[in-house]
Amino acid sequence: MSDAPDSAPQRPDLRVAILGCGTVGTQVVRLLTEQADDLGQRVGRRLRLTGILVRDVDAPRDPAVPTGLLTTDADALLADADLVVELLGGTTTARDLVLAALTAGASVVTANKALLATSGPELYAAADAAGVDLLFEAAVAGAVPVVRGVRESLAGDRVQRILGIVNGTTNFILDEMTTGGLDFDVALKQAQELGYAEADPTADVEGHDAAAKAAILASLAFHTRVALADVACEGITAVSAADIVAARETGGVIKLLAIAERIVTTDAAGEPAESVSVRVNPAILPFAHPLAGVGGAYNAVVVEAEAAGRLMFYGAGAGGAPTASAVLGDVVAAARHRTHGGRAPAESAHAALPLASDADVVARLQIRLLVDDRPGVLAHVSTTVADHGVSIESVRQQVGHAGTATLAVVTHEADEASLSRTVEALRHTDGVKQLLAAYRVERP
Amino acid sequence: MSDAPDSAPQRPDLRVAILGCGTVGTQVVRLLTEQADDLGQRVGRRLRLTGILVRDVDAPRDPAVPTGLLTTDADALLADADLVVELLGGTTTARDLVLAALTAGASVVTANKALLATSGPELYAAADAAGVDLLFEAAVAGAVPVVRGVRESLAGDRVQRILGIVNGTTNFILDEMTTGGLDFDVALKQAQELGYAEADPTADVEGHDAAAKAAILASLAFHTRVALADVACEGITAVSAADIVAARETGGVIKLLAIAERIVTTDAAGEPAESVSVRVNPAILPFAHPLAGVGGAYNAVVVEAEAAGRLMFYGAGAGGAPTASAVLGDVVAAARHRTHGGRAPAESAHAALPLASDADVVARLQIRLLVDDRPGVLAHVSTTVADHGVSIESVRQQVGHAGTATLAVVTHEADEASLSRTVEALRHTDGVKQLLAAYRVERP
Repeated sequence: MSDAPDSAPQRPDLRVAILGCGTVGTQVVRLLTEQADDLGQRVGRRLRLTGILVRDVDAPRDPAVPTGLLTTDADALLADADLVVELLGGTTTARDLVLAALTAGASVVTANKALLATSGPELYAAADAAGVDLLFEAAVAGAVPVVRGVRESLAGDRVQRILGIVNGTTNFILDEMTTGGLDFDVALKQAQELGYAEADPTADVEGHDAAAKAAILASLAFHTRVALADVACEGITAVSAADIVAARETGGVIKLLAIAERIVTTDAAGEPAESVSVRVNPAILPFAHPLAGVGGAYNAVVVEAEAAGRLMFYGAGAGGAPTASAVLGDVVAAARHRTHGGRAPAESAHAALPLASDADVVARLQIRLLVDDRPGVLAHVSTTVADHGVSIESVRQQVGHAGTATLAVVTHEADEASLSRTVEALRHTDGVKQLLAAYRVERP
Repeated sequence: MSDAPDSAPQRPDLRVAILGCGTVGTQVVRLLTEQADDLGQRVGRRLRLTGILVRDVDAPRDPAVPTGLLTTDADALLADADLVVELLGGTTTARDLVLAALTAGASVVTANKALLATSGPELYAAADAAGVDLLFEAAVAGAVPVVRGVRESLAGDRVQRILGIVNGTTNFILDEMTTGGLDFDVALKQAQELGYAEADPTADVEGHDAAAKAAILASLAFHTRVALADVACEGITAVSAADIVAARETGGVIKLLAIAERIVTTDAAGEPAESVSVRVNPAILPFAHPLAGVGGAYNAVVVEAEAAGRLMFYGAGAGGAPTASAVLGDVVAAARHRTHGGRAPAESAHAALPLASDADVVARLQIRLLVDDRPGVLAHVSTTVADHGVSIESVRQQVGHAGTATLAVVTHEADEASLSRTVEALRHTDGVKQLLAAYRVERP
């Protein structure tokens, strides 16, 4: 079991196949080549790159990529690999090749969150059956080592809640809106011009990318199966410059959060019952919250655990080199397991918690209303809120123009079902002209 | 290799012995008991607590501790253990028992930074010889999973620099000084009254505790042996309320930092030569630095790696439950290795980098001087600085009383040797009455 390189002089090289050679693939190839000696020492034997699967071997490439290793023959590549690094993206070919690799007994490292969110259970089962690793640190928040943190560092603790900024594009857009007073459309266009947002930004701005990561984190943290479809998802397209100003006036910033929490309630028999709530939504974070200062394309994830308290993991959420660093960390772990034995903790869903209902999840809301500027309106609003069993923490009124005013109501904690009914009822309350926005407000 | 609990129905329990039953030990016992089922599923077999070594079995205990397991017989306890958790503290008995446990083939988890800083190499060698784990996440920054982050997540990357707030007591004291405008002595007394500082605060306020952690982190990050004596160490006893005000005026806060960096220079033959610099000192952090906002008893460590860029790990740096969480994470890892095979990466010092000389380490300084308020003094000061090959980034002058002024000079980056000579020369420069302070200034 010793690591000393001289203890196993005859160990054959570990054969590594890479699927895909885009930005991340190129950096993985570069690091595997440049750090070959160091990696060999950390693993206990040399890693030998056997091939790189591409669509077109003649396409122009970074000089770091050895063109002699490029191939279009996936079958031959997989037949000759101990460890497969999947960097193709997509969920069809990637799923078939990863499944084939695992079934053939190869360990797999992937950065593909969409693949895990759609085919995770099938792939975890294949890895379990073969007794090999399926590792995916790079699939959630780039270089930020939150997957290992949740899966290994907190293995002796109980995670209660995860709160993360896991999409750099939306964080960049919200940042631009906050610092430049821009509206969403303008900030999106700017992000596209700077290459921070794609031509079709849907997956980012509608929150789908963050939702896939939330599903992965929730599955890990609560040892349960959370599918993409289980994640309640709201993006940032409806966030306005005025919303951001209003958040600032109440001492906070708007961030798109991926949230996964363990909900403990009491069932009919008085026994504690557990469930999970997983969602993505824009929320107001007070300035003092550790996530409030996470700017630009950075990602950060706060994990609240019973014994550890609040931990935060922070770093580059995307980019070729940072993502490649996370991939390589997993490559070393999987290669060590194939060399010295052992295996990363499996994605066993032994808890199998149900999804929480709206009546069990509590939140605070900031509700902003455009109202008639006349006596009695605040009383109507207060009564509507109280009638739904929700109590008010604070109200701010600002006089507008043409006989209108804005009311910003912040509630105390209440269950989501009651809060939804409150918001609906406020739309039809006497004196309310328009519901401007409703945001969850996190505690510092 | 499968994790499925039914794949090894006959596996005997894994026998766990705990040495020490103070604040952390009590919490470890509690978690081991309360989470027994979950831990068993994560490990693949049950963990059975076989005994808890204490000095006096009759001393009063937390009700979470099963008194029947208390023992004063270390030999009998070690003879019957697969995994030993060392929470005694100290470096004598702890060293003997850990060495005995490793030699007997048990895996060891420890939270004892002093032990690692003084006897690390001997203990790592014993663990290597026996092919067992010696894990110590809890020895650095409590619950903050930076040891696993550096050792495993960044195993495929190259760490360039580590910058950490790793001592909660000094961070609390500096925080109190910053928010309350207190002097060191007053803030220390307050911290002692609140239980944040010990009656003899030397190890904390002189930086020795942070230095032990810096040595551990540097050894891990650079795969080299850094002893406690190699760490240049300066504490916070000389930090004054005026220093903190001056830092704020230049846009920053004073924090006690543990710093480990890889220095790359060019040797006489034009080849790159590497060395490491490890130190603990108070420094000025600009408000925008991710560590600047780390308050109270929290710890945080920034790791800068070649590919990953800047990562930060943040959390509770001390306390029974957070430290126990980190211990349990290591217990699960070591227990999995004993169950499924494998081993954590060994502390192999394959790089064996030398310590950097002052001439190779660069820094920026803020130097504050009390000077005569008369024409020509700034010219004398500027000339002295320039004569030592150091250039000035900014100067702020504030008129004082009785014909004096304060000058706050911030230098550009320069090597430490030149900076030290500059500071010495300024003491004797015409018109300088007193050197008030000199602090390193970090970049945001």
